[in-house]
Order: sequence, then C-alpha cells, then structure tokens
Amino acid sequence: MKRYEVFAAEMAERIRSGVLRPGDRLPSVRQASTSRGISPTTVFEAYYLLEARGVITARPRSGYYVRAGAAAGPAEPATSAPPDASTAVEISELVFEVLGAIRQRDVVPLGSAFPSPLLFPLDRLALHLSKSMRRLDPWQTVEDLTPGSEALRRQLGLRYVVDGTPVEPGEIVITNGAMEALNLCLQAVTQPGDVVAVESPTFYASLQALERLNLKAVEVATHPRTGVDLASLEAVLARHPVKACWFMPNFQNPLGALMPDTHKQALVALLLRHGVPLIEDDVYGELYFGARRPPPAKAFDRAGLVMHCGSFSKCLAPGYRVGWVAGGRFSERIARLKLMTTLSAPVPSQEALVSYLQQGGYDRHLRRLRDTLAAGQASALRLIARHFPKGTRTTRPDGGYFLWVEMPNGVDALRLHRLALSQRISIAPGHLFSADRRFTNCLRLNHGHPGDPRFAQAMKTLGQLACSLVPGG
Amino acid sequence: MKRYEVFAAEMAERIRSGVLRPGDRLPSVRQASTSRGISPTTVFEAYYLLEARGVITARPRSGYYVRAGAAAGPAEPATSAPPDASTAVEISELVFEVLGAIRQRDVVPLGSAFPSPLLFPLDRLALHLSKSMRRLDPWQTVEDLTPGSEALRRQLGLRYVVDGTPVEPGEIVITNGAMEALNLCLQAVTQPGDVVAVESPTFYASLQALERLNLKAVEVATHPRTGVDLASLEAVLARHPVKACWFMPNFQNPLGALMPDTHKQALVALLLRHGVPLIEDDVYGELYFGARRPPPAKAFDRAGLVMHCGSFSKCLAPGYRVGWVAGGRFSERIARLKLMTTLSAPVPSQEALVSYLQQGGYDRHLRRLRDTLAAGQASALRLIARHFPKGTRTTRPDGGYFLWVEMPNGVDALRLHRLALSQRISIAPGHLFSADRRFTNCLRLNHGHPGDPRFAQAMKTLGQLACSLVPGG
Repeated sequence: MKRYEVFAAEMAERIRSGVLRPGDRLPSVRQASTSRGISPTTVFEAYYLLEARGVITARPRSGYYVRAGAAAGPAEPATSAPPDASTAVEISELVFEVLGAIRQRDVVPLGSAFPSPLLFPLDRLALHLSKSMRRLDPWQTVEDLTPGSEALRRQLGLRYVVDGTPVEPGEIVITNGAMEALNLCLQAVTQPGDVVAVESPTFYASLQALERLNLKAVEVATHPRTGVDLASLEAVLARHPVKACWFMPNFQNPLGALMPDTHKQALVALLLRHGVPLIEDDVYGELYFGARRPPPAKAFDRAGLVMHCGSFSKCLAPGYRVGWVAGGRFSERIARLKLMTTLSAPVPSQEALVSYLQQGGYDRHLRRLRDTLAAGQASALRLIARHFPKGTRTTRPDGGYFLWVEMPNGVDALRLHRLALSQRISIAPGHLFSADRRFTNCLRLNHGHPGDPRFAQAMKTLGQLACSLVPGG
Repeated sequence: MKRYEVFAAEMAERIRSGVLRPGDRLPSVRQASTSRGISPTTVFEAYYLLEARGVITARPRSGYYVRAGAAAGPAEPATSAPPDASTAVEISELVFEVLGAIRQRDVVPLGSAFPSPLLFPLDRLALHLSKSMRRLDPWQTVEDLTPGSEALRRQLGLRYVVDGTPVEPGEIVITNGAMEALNLCLQAVTQPGDVVAVESPTFYASLQALERLNLKAVEVATHPRTGVDLASLEAVLARHPVKACWFMPNFQNPLGALMPDTHKQALVALLLRHGVPLIEDDVYGELYFGARRPPPAKAFDRAGLVMHCGSFSKCLAPGYRVGWVAGGRFSERIARLKLMTTLSAPVPSQEALVSYLQQGGYDRHLRRLRDTLAAGQASALRLIARHFPKGTRTTRPDGGYFLWVEMPNGVDALRLHRLALSQRISIAPGHLFSADRRFTNCLRLNHGHPGDPRFAQAMKTLGQLACSLVPGG
C-alpha cells in the first residue's frame, strides 16, 4: 500500500463518517504536506484519487471540496428480516425469464451481472495467449489436468501470500470460472435435502445451485453495509440442521456489503464451533475502493473449514472461464468431483493468465479499474438522488459495481423491469434475490459500464418510470 | 468418400471376412485397374492406405500380400454377460487409485485415456488462436454465453449436414469437453435413485457420473464388435425402470465396438417405443478406419430423444476443453443446467476452433490421424499375438485407439497393473469397467502413442508379466 493511498483512505473515512461534510474544504496541499510530514506530490496523488472516485471535487484556484452526495445522498436500506424457515428453492424460471430478455446489445445493461468488457486489457491478454501457446509443451495438454496448471496455482499462491491469507498451492483447484468452483464446493459438503444458509438478499445463482441440487435454503438477516448478521446466524444454526453456509463477505451480490474483519473472524469462529463449512464467494474482493484488499474470511481460518472461491472473470479476463477454489480440508473431494464433471479447465486460458500474471501488469490494471468503478458509483448515486422517487434508499458499497436500490413500498420492480425493457433498459428486479420472491420494491443496478454514453439518460428514464409506479404518486 | 477409399474398404472387408487370408496375394494393380474400371493410381492409393493400416504388406517385385495377423491373430472375446440387477455404483476410489498412479511422464502410457498430444496440430491451432483473439469483439466475452459461440455452433451444424445427421444449430450447446456434456444430459433426464442402462464393460467415467449423482447402473450385454445386444437391452427395459441409456455406438470405450447402422436404427426405435432417452457418447466417431464416418444413433432419431455428445479433445484439440451436445428435445433443459453449473465454455478455445474449422484443415488432419491410429493398432495386435499368454483374446476395432485384451482366466489385471507400474508401464485394468468389478482378467490398452519408441519393449514386458501370472503357467 502506497503512502498516497494511506492518506486518501484516511480522508475518505473522514468523509464517510461525517467529520468532513459535503461542501467542506479539504486541507490545502501545503497544509496537509506540512502537518502529516508527507510530500506535496503524495497529497496531490491522494486528492487525484479521491477526485477520480467522485468523492471530492477541485475548484480552480480554491482547492478541493467534499462533493455533494459523497457521503450523503440516498439513505441506506435496513437490515433484512428473512423468515425463519428453510425452503425448497424454485427461482430458476423467473431468473431465466429476466436474464433472457436482457441479452440484446441495444439494451442499456443496468441489470447485467457483468461489468463492461471494455474495462479489461483483452488485447494484452491476447498477446500473452499467443506467446504462451506458441511455446506450449504439447504434453501439458494432457498433464496436470484436474487440479489445473501448476504454474497458475503457484501464481495464485503468491497472491495469497501477499494478502496474508494462509493457502497452500496444493489446496487450489482451477475451475471453469467461480460458478463451477462454488457448485463443486456445494456438492462436496451436502447431500440432496440438506439445508444451506445464504444471505438475504442473496445472489440468484446460489439459489439456482441449491435448486439444481435439491437443497433447501435458509436465509440469514444481512446488513446492507456490514453483511451477515452474526446473532441471526447463530440463531439459525441453533434451529436448523445447516450443512454449509454460502456467503460473500466481500462486496456481496447484490448488496455490496463488506463484512468488517472482526465480523469475519467471529464468523469463522462461530462456524468452527458448529462444525459448519463456509463456501466463500470472493469474486469481487479485488474491486475494493479503500486502501487495501479486504481479507477473505479464509484469512481467519486455521481449521480448513473455509472453501475460498475466486475468479478472473470480473476483474481481468471475462470469457476466459478461469476461476479457482482453495478448498481447505475439502480440496481432494473437490478435485475428484471436478475430474468427474468437467475433467479440467481450458489450457489456453490458463496459460495466458500465467504469462500475464508473471509479467506483473495485473496490479496496475486493477488500480485503474478500481478508480473507474468508484467514479461510476459516485455518478450513479448522484443520478439516483436526482431522478428516483422520494424515499428511495441505496447501498453505497466500498467496492464492486452494484448498487442495491430500495424504492418506496408498493413500487413493483418486476413491473419496472418490464416497463424499462420496453425502453431498452434492463434491471435486475429484487424478486430474483430470495427463495420466496421478497424484495419486490428493490433492484440491483450495475454501474460498471462507465463508457456507455446512454447511462445518464437511462438512469433518468428509469427514475421517471419508478416515480410513475409509486402508489398514489 | 474418394474412389480409392471405396476400393480399400472393399478389400479390407474381404480380408476381414476371410475371403482373402493371411499370405494371399492381392490382385495386381493392372488386374484390379482393368477389372474394376478404375485408374492404376486409384489402386495404388488404396493399397498404400491398407499398407499404412498394417492390413497388407508389399513384397518388392512381387506385389501386395495380406499380412499375418491382419484378420487372424488373437481371437475375439465373447459377448459380455452382466448380472440382471441394477446396482449402486462405487467405483471411484479404485479409478482414482489407478489413474493417479499413471501420470508421470516416464511411465509408458498404455493405460492412458488420451492419444499422444503429438498427433495434433497444436501449432496451427495456436496460430488460429492468436489470429482470432486479436480481432475479437470484446462484447463477445459476455454475449452468447451459455449455448456457446454462434459461429462454432454453425460450424458444427455444417458437419452434421455433411454427415447426414439431422441436427439444428439451435439444439447445440457448447460445453467444457464431452464430459460436461454427458453429465448435463444425465442430470437433464434423471433424479437421484433412478436407473440408467450402460454397456458392459463400460467407460469408468460414466460409472463415476452415476455414482456422483446417486444413480443406479444396469449393465447390458455387449458384443465386442457390434456393441449393445438389442435383445438383452429389450429384456432389461422390460424388467427395470430405466430412465436413460448412456451408450457409445461408435468405437465404444473400452471395447471399440461399432454398432452396425441397422442396429443403431433398431436401438433408436426400441428406445422410442419405451420412451427412454439415449445419451450418446460419440467422442471417437471421427477416428474411423473404414471408408466413411459411421453415423451416430442420432442420425436415425426423428423424435428428439437422442442427446448426441461430441468433443474436439480426442481428435483435434486436447486441453482446449471444447465439447458439445445436440440435445434434441432436452436442449433447453441442458442449456439451463449449463448456465447454473459452469455458465459457459471458454471464449479463446472456441474462437480458435471456429477459425481452424473455417480454414478447412480439419479433414486433412483427420485423414492423417486415422491412418496413424490404424497402423498403431496393427502393430499392437502383432505384439499381443507374439508376447501375451496363449489363449489371450483381443478386440480389433474399426476405429479409435483402444484394444480390449482378455487374458486367460485367473490372470488378475489389477496385479498386472501393479507389476507393470513397477516397470514404469501403465494399463487400465478391467476392474474399472463395471460397477461390480468383473472383467478381472481384462485390460484396456492404448495404442495411440505411435511415436513412442518405448512402445514395443513395453508391450513385450507387459506380455511377459502377464505370462508370469497365468495360474500354473
């Protein structure tokens, strides 16, 4: 972590906590430099970073000011209150209907699960792909099959070391994206009919996975900023025969919630006491806006009970289909399930990533990507504040590219989805994010297409449509 | 099908049926040319082909002769006689033990499931990979996700058209290799506890798939040359609540059996009468030694009851992990299961294949590959006749790269596997190929590493080890 990032994170925290408020002037570069004993350049870099993220704004010959909407803006939704029951899942039909409709390129993809592919260094990756496949030893195509490329597992192991997460390269299995990793973990620790705890709201793909494997879901109350409510989880574990938890402690989809480190540590300890394995979906962990990568829950696991799933699809190489799992004590079972279902991950994709990661451009790319996404979030929050119905609440995640928008009661997001689609705009209605179709006045909004010139107008149109759906409005 | 191929196939058939016997002289080029009204060049090409396949041999200034061992050699095993019961499957542990041991590069891979990677145009594929990824539209990485590349499905559709198999591109789903295709098909038509009919012996991966999904296997008597015995299958269908069949009509693994077209047609009709879907594993179909590609059972299906699974892994692009399924009436269900488990197949691998297939080098490569494999088979048969215990029987498949070797009663293939491994030679013992570990005196032998200078010596060592295990021998 660079010095300017430390300083920027500190200022951002002051703004978030309300010490510095919209319109406040930040310390001048000279003041900050003197008082903190850092160079003016460092201060400038920190301010540029905050400006890129939409948190502060420069006024010519005057200095830097906290932006309106940087900390204020729409209020935050409340902690969810799911029913205390485990339910069989039947969500797929609706998911397919909604997702099927939003594939066309002329639709503004606010409902998409993917950030814009234009954010990724696809040309550079293609060069690495060419280079690595030209010098490929043919025998590599039939060796190392199931666990995946030895070299790629070593690269991943190095990143874990840098992040301080105790993972052995030997426990890593390369998969066809994180989706496969998560599904393999689920199969490794459950049998049909078992109960699995998920967040509320939760990512629809995890509900679909439970549905496919005939598992039951029990939803756990989840705070929109700090994630799973641990007291609620403890109560759930006491009352239900939970066989596994599937959580996203970092930038949860759809809320964007980030569990504080202390919560993660307590979560791991709680699950250890109950002997319940954690399937940790950490595909957004690299997309943090703060000063450092938030550690996964896996970082606090000494018992091998956490299966940590990651992917390059959301932060580097969409379409390459390379994810992985560090499976702890379940690694071997996962590897065997992998062998029995898809045999191995694609060699060309893995080789390209090894070459790219070895050359060291990844962290530079990630820094740029994070700044872009943070700026996109700031812009989306401003547009929501301006155009959405009065009383609309939103999350304000510290990473990722989703906002969870809670509209006034009575605004039906599925109706909004259909209206919006007729205007060639997609959204992900809240109905998709629970087993029993709650969150009917909510939607997940993707702001990860910052280069899309249609974005501002689409947000305005969407807000107007939402206003038209407010009961008695 | 070229004229010389027609003539070669005809001569091969005469040799197989015993009209021409080992040591017999073939018609001279002039005789054949005159009597058949074909050019001398055509006759020469046919004879070269048969020579490459080890069926005939040229004697200088004398002509072409049928080789010893071309049709004679070891006798053929008998039709299998599996028990008439459906059984839960527990084969994985043994499979993992055996496969885990044979990974090292210094082991002669007679037990491998893969042909030599040196047989494939990996350099050309790498060029196509580079070219296609350089010009990739970034949006393709997030579009067409689940069913796979539109262009690749079109190419596959064209090949089906050429082969006369009625498949719509719209029913094709691209998968992570055939293994995933087969697993998805199985999930699409079964629930845990259901009974699935398989061949006897059968490919261990299908047994593992049944085990993973808690399905029961019922094995059907199978002829080593003509495949599933239809009368036995009819009896099985009458007595067991079979929910699906998983068969390999073309060059079955491990037998190499090829169902005659009339059998395939009757199979499809029989299954239609019983309303039982067929999961057709056709990954070796392109590796025929005869004059034309044997049609899949799918070619006779008008009801959409056959799910035809193919792959590029065994005939073009190992490690690229691209397979597919033409799923008939189950296509949509398969696509959804795919979306829920691994989302989509890798874009780089698919793009490389599209570009390669469009340039048209595939059929030329396949012709060369078939000749190489046919010659490898002839050589393996000669070595078995020379070195293996008296009374050893083998199949003599019309395609692929496996031989099924039945040694005298009492020779335990698992013991042979362990002895051979200590000599750095691997085999696939017969125990792996049934749910109840029958076929204990059999082994599957991979002759698809023709460039391996260790092959002849390894076959000799293996034969000697087998002789040492003959009871009272």
